[in-house]
Amino acid sequence: MTAQLVITNIKLATASDPNKPYGEIAPAAIAVAKGKIIWIGAAEDAPSAHTLIDGKDGWLTPGLIDCHTHLIFGGNRANEFEWRQQGISYTEISNRGGGIMSTVQATRLATDKDLLQSAQKRLDALMAEGVTSLEIKSGYGLSLEQELRMLRLARQLENQNPVKIATTLLAAHALPPEFTSKDFYIDHIVNAILPAAVAENLVDAVDVFCEGVGFSVAQCERVFKAATALGLRVKGHVEQLSNLHGSALVAKYQGLSVDHIEYLSDQDIALLKAANTVAVLLPAAYFFLKETQQPPIHALRKAGVAMAVATDCNPGTAPQASLLTAMNQACVLFGLTPEESFYGVTRHAASALNLSNKGQLAVGFDADLLLWDIESPAELSYGINLVKPIKRWVAGELQA
Amino acid sequence: MTAQLVITNIKLATASDPNKPYGEIAPAAIAVAKGKIIWIGAAEDAPSAHTLIDGKDGWLTPGLIDCHTHLIFGGNRANEFEWRQQGISYTEISNRGGGIMSTVQATRLATDKDLLQSAQKRLDALMAEGVTSLEIKSGYGLSLEQELRMLRLARQLENQNPVKIATTLLAAHALPPEFTSKDFYIDHIVNAILPAAVAENLVDAVDVFCEGVGFSVAQCERVFKAATALGLRVKGHVEQLSNLHGSALVAKYQGLSVDHIEYLSDQDIALLKAANTVAVLLPAAYFFLKETQQPPIHALRKAGVAMAVATDCNPGTAPQASLLTAMNQACVLFGLTPEESFYGVTRHAASALNLSNKGQLAVGFDADLLLWDIESPAELSYGINLVKPIKRWVAGELQA
Ligand SMILES: [Zn+2]
Ligand SMILES: [Zn+2]
Repeated sequence: MTAQLVITNIKLATASDPNKPYGEIAPAAIAVAKGKIIWIGAAEDAPSAHTLIDGKDGWLTPGLIDCHTHLIFGGNRANEFEWRQQGISYTEISNRGGGIMSTVQATRLATDKDLLQSAQKRLDALMAEGVTSLEIKSGYGLSLEQELRMLRLARQLENQNPVKIATTLLAAHALPPEFTSKDFYIDHIVNAILPAAVAENLVDAVDVFCEGVGFSVAQCERVFKAATALGLRVKGHVEQLSNLHGSALVAKYQGLSVDHIEYLSDQDIALLKAANTVAVLLPAAYFFLKETQQPPIHALRKAGVAMAVATDCNPGTAPQASLLTAMNQACVLFGLTPEESFYGVTRHAASALNLSNKGQLAVGFDADLLLWDIESPAELSYGINLVKPIKRWVAGELQA
Repeated sequence: MTAQLVITNIKLATASDPNKPYGEIAPAAIAVAKGKIIWIGAAEDAPSAHTLIDGKDGWLTPGLIDCHTHLIFGGNRANEFEWRQQGISYTEISNRGGGIMSTVQATRLATDKDLLQSAQKRLDALMAEGVTSLEIKSGYGLSLEQELRMLRLARQLENQNPVKIATTLLAAHALPPEFTSKDFYIDHIVNAILPAAVAENLVDAVDVFCEGVGFSVAQCERVFKAATALGLRVKGHVEQLSNLHGSALVAKYQGLSVDHIEYLSDQDIALLKAANTVAVLLPAAYFFLKETQQPPIHALRKAGVAMAVATDCNPGTAPQASLLTAMNQACVLFGLTPEESFYGVTRHAASALNLSNKGQLAVGFDADLLLWDIESPAELSYGINLVKPIKRWVAGELQA
């Protein structure tokens, strides 16, 4: 059989073999057919290929996966940022219409075209850095019509780009202005938004914001029950600003991931491990919010909980369209090693999105491949804006 | 007279009129001839032009100026970063050959071509963000031959790119391995390196690292005296890790800038103001070093000292090739307003490099112009990797 693509003269950071740093195989070659990795081995044993690439002793990694983003939104919050830096009080900023509701309003008022155009810019920035899969959450629509619109636009963005987009319904992000009771809004999510979104096949997973300023554990559990009954996996924004033990709830429902987790407690870490739930670290939000409470990295590491790293790209608390910078921030701010950051945007990020064919260089996995002109994979985490992949393939197809 | 270029339908952030935020003039048009701004006014009054650009209601700013970089160096320190994140001790890292001497060694061993190629990558990253002028320091050669080579390469980089490069001799960066006495090395700088570099017209300014691990105030003063005698302006890496009152020394010599200044004391701030010395903030180094002592922003602001913001791009303490990210870091980490960050990479950065024709949109200034598809100049500081200029002109010439 002739392979579609063979790349020789490379070092592989496979994220697959836990016994070697970065899962290194070097020197090596890789072969691709029908968009999948079909062979890894020594160059002299490589199958014949339609396209043969000399990797010039560079490193090949899996395509990067940004497993937590709010990429689609209207407007931006630069003015609010400016007011904050000018020392204007939160009350005054709220009076001027700042906060998440300003993004909800801007999103609702934006045309589909506006939302796609602004999201495309951020997506372009992520793809240029090597992102080949990402999650996009709803959560700025907060009504049946608008939440479904956000998810449809996420699907459309996927159709228009060489990228895998996992959609997450985050209707339980904030209380919409039309509701005065959080419980009534949860009723609406469970009875109307979720079923409609599922009926239209718009939902890959379901998320909640479990926090005092968000929703209670009991309210989140109602969403999880409904999602689970529909066969969907769940995840949660939990323990970001306080500890409500939302993580224990996510683990109870065998959730894909717990995200933020600055205030995660030791007792809940064991539950995450048992449930195979990924701990998603969002250092950009920690940075922009000037937080000081770090997630319990040592305890997570010791317990063997898989850690992912994502941008959390959003207009309020993480206006950042750089996953490589998030890798660096995870090292500098949270103490991850570059190898942990690397697993956090490949293998473990794939787990957080339930993408079982992505995030590793191994036979049978999707051929989402990045070629880097670097001496060590540590360079991906080492700095800010220093490296970009010199070649990118998605499902074996070379990207411009 | 027909202008070379007229841009209409824009808002100007001139950094020139202190009575309006960002020096705003809007709506406006601008005209360029012979590489200079020759006119600013209402579109209907614009002169005729060979090239007429519709700015589509975007913002026009001066080209950005990165007034403190160590852009030329051999190798990288990703391995050292990885060791540090793995918890390996400083002693052990030093035994493995980490630290600045590893960069000195790699720089000395690198060919001219290697140094130019690696610096070009970082320069490309900066230029894509809108940098049209920058400083490059020597300081990884630490010998007559190698310091001059670094400065020659900086001049060569300028010749090969649409960018203004100000060179700074930083021979007093660290003690080279060939010397056992700092005083003897200062003798060598003053008597050999500095005169030779000046004779070859390689030096735009002279810098020192005034710190316990660098050089004493007395040693730095010897360099400043020699530089001043040769008609050169001086500047200093001062008060980064401790307070030696290097700032007072820089002010005494009417220095262009004091850089880092986390430990700057109130009494020295008045001296800086009196000497018209710019305070250069380097938040990337603060970030990567996980520092907690912030520069005295309130006191500098109150005293009316001009503040600049730069990347400090270097392989050890600031592996960052993004000036826009440094603007954001200056806001988030040091509490600058977006407007202060903007002045810090335009007007005040020009002062720090003694580039009197750059950093402002005003008649007679160089036509280094950036067009941005943004609603407010605050967007330049608001996030990470969200915006890039959509058009760039250097001396009135459109860049690809
Ligand atoms: Zn989020
Ligand atoms: Zn420096």
